Amino acid sequence: MQLWNPADMPKTILIREVGMRDGLQQEKFVVPTNQKIDLINSLNLTGLQAIEVTSFVHPDFVPQLSDAEQVLRGIQRKDSVSYEALVPNEKGLARAQDTDVDEVIFVVSASDEHNLANVKQTRKQSLLALEKIAEKKKDCKVKVTVGTAFGCPFVGEVSYEWVYEIIKTSWELGVHEVFLADTTGMANPRSVYERVSQVRLDFPEISLGLHFHDTRGMGLSNVLAGLQAGVSVYDSSLGGIGGCPFAPGATGNIATEDLVHMVEEMGIHTGVNLPELLKVSKKLQDILGRELPGHILKAGPAFPGSHEKDQRELS
Amino acid sequence: MQLWNPADMPKTILIREVGMRDGLQQEKFVVPTNQKIDLINSLNLTGLQAIEVTSFVHPDFVPQLSDAEQVLRGIQRKDSVSYEALVPNEKGLARAQDTDVDEVIFVVSASDEHNLANVKQTRKQSLLALEKIAEKKKDCKVKVTVGTAFGCPFVGEVSYEWVYEIIKTSWELGVHEVFLADTTGMANPRSVYERVSQVRLDFPEISLGLHFHDTRGMGLSNVLAGLQAGVSVYDSSLGGIGGCPFAPGATGNIATEDLVHMVEEMGIHTGVNLPELLKVSKKLQDILGRELPGHILKAGPAFPGSHEKDQRELS
Repeated sequence: MQLWNPADMPKTILIREVGMRDGLQQEKFVVPTNQKIDLINSLNLTGLQAIEVTSFVHPDFVPQLSDAEQVLRGIQRKDSVSYEALVPNEKGLARAQDTDVDEVIFVVSASDEHNLANVKQTRKQSLLALEKIAEKKKDCKVKVTVGTAFGCPFVGEVSYEWVYEIIKTSWELGVHEVFLADTTGMANPRSVYERVSQVRLDFPEISLGLHFHDTRGMGLSNVLAGLQAGVSVYDSSLGGIGGCPFAPGATGNIATEDLVHMVEEMGIHTGVNLPELLKVSKKLQDILGRELPGHILKAGPAFPGSHEKDQRELS
Repeated sequence: MQLWNPADMPKTILIREVGMRDGLQQEKFVVPTNQKIDLINSLNLTGLQAIEVTSFVHPDFVPQLSDAEQVLRGIQRKDSVSYEALVPNEKGLARAQDTDVDEVIFVVSASDEHNLANVKQTRKQSLLALEKIAEKKKDCKVKVTVGTAFGCPFVGEVSYEWVYEIIKTSWELGVHEVFLADTTGMANPRSVYERVSQVRLDFPEISLGLHFHDTRGMGLSNVLAGLQAGVSVYDSSLGGIGGCPFAPGATGNIATEDLVHMVEEMGIHTGVNLPELLKVSKKLQDILGRELPGHILKAGPAFPGSHEKDQRELS
């Protein structure tokens, strides 16, 4: 029998809420700016410590997020929360810095084919854009997300070398926080455990986060494998919105409430108050006018009482 | 860093398909007998080795399965497949034995409250019914499923003593195969790992299976924890039908295709041909006339080619 000691897993994880960016950019219905601001202000009350609020891509490319400046200027900011935004290039970085964003995220896919489909650039071109961002950044921190890190819908298997190259370049450019993203839900717990362990071996000093989709029902299993490999930073999206244009009808990001629920039930702290979070998730569901894929909004917590008691004090 | 060695997990698992019983009994639409027979005959071609085909409860109680005899007499039987049925008492056993079923399953909930709600008997009364079944059984094997083994919607926490008592009584009655069922989706990977490890310690000779629901998105994570605790027998249902009357709108059993997909991607063999299974799942979806909760039917396999090659030869 395998000896699995839950005490070996992280005792606390940090959750980055990505629904307002990764989620809303996929929605047909364009959420009005004031409702986005209200959602983010409500997320402020949940205990979440990192919120990806928008994206500074060209408005023609993602019209849903063309109000990036208004959103970042309209929200109430809490000291305990990091407000983050995606930037695709130095132009986006300049716009983002004008709004005093705390951190910017740059995404590059490990697979050239996916990167071309996603941002119309080769991986090499994207890494040159990252170099410019690393040069021009002022106070904000830069994070890199490696897309299709566990598989690509166009080429299938993604070589570890491609992932390695992006992380190495990032590290050399002074980027010390990297996310491995399972952009189209192709990871499984074994591939997560093995790839993550390899990255941690090759880049022991890098801060590593994981970004999973529930496309094939393995989202939380992949989190479990990530926890067992020692990772304590996870992306997730309110209600599980998001999804992938290359797998129509499929579920999106892992739902923040499902993630909080699972790990808190396992005795791992998130600092997030689940009942408060569910209120915001319900609000989002009402705004979008459709049933969201997250499970806990439908079924409720397994042991409701425990989620009232076990949360950290909300500041 | 935790050392997780995938080689420590079972190399092969056995899947018990429960959709035709646990799934269909929850459906409003009563599937006509000839379509049930056609579905089971199609399942015969997938490589599945155990199918729970129906239930011998009183027809007034579960009218959806009142054709139990016709179904069992109508299907083609394959030597490599175990055809199984639920029996609630010795009357059900007699009916089941008249159809030459291979195995019968008896369900008793660890929580008295749930057992009363489910079968209108206390746990003690149910164990007396089990005693009669164990006495009267002829050629067929008897299995016991411990319901609400990880939590009860009425009382919350389920004491290990309640689970222990059922397994001990079963063992003393000559029942050597027991399933722990997370009837309403309250288990988490930690509780699964800990409870399963305890059962294996206390009953080293018992054959243990697990039955999970995806009510709170943790279905496959709980399988992963089960695999890590050394369990190699799992229930699942075609398309993920089933669900729980006490969590309306919530997802049902873990979907057989999602289970096959995950473990095969991890290098664990099921003997099930995924493309063939997906055909049957699609057929069930067409019969029920609604989108089924399973993920792979929507998103397709992550690496489609690998599921064509890696299957065992179908006999």
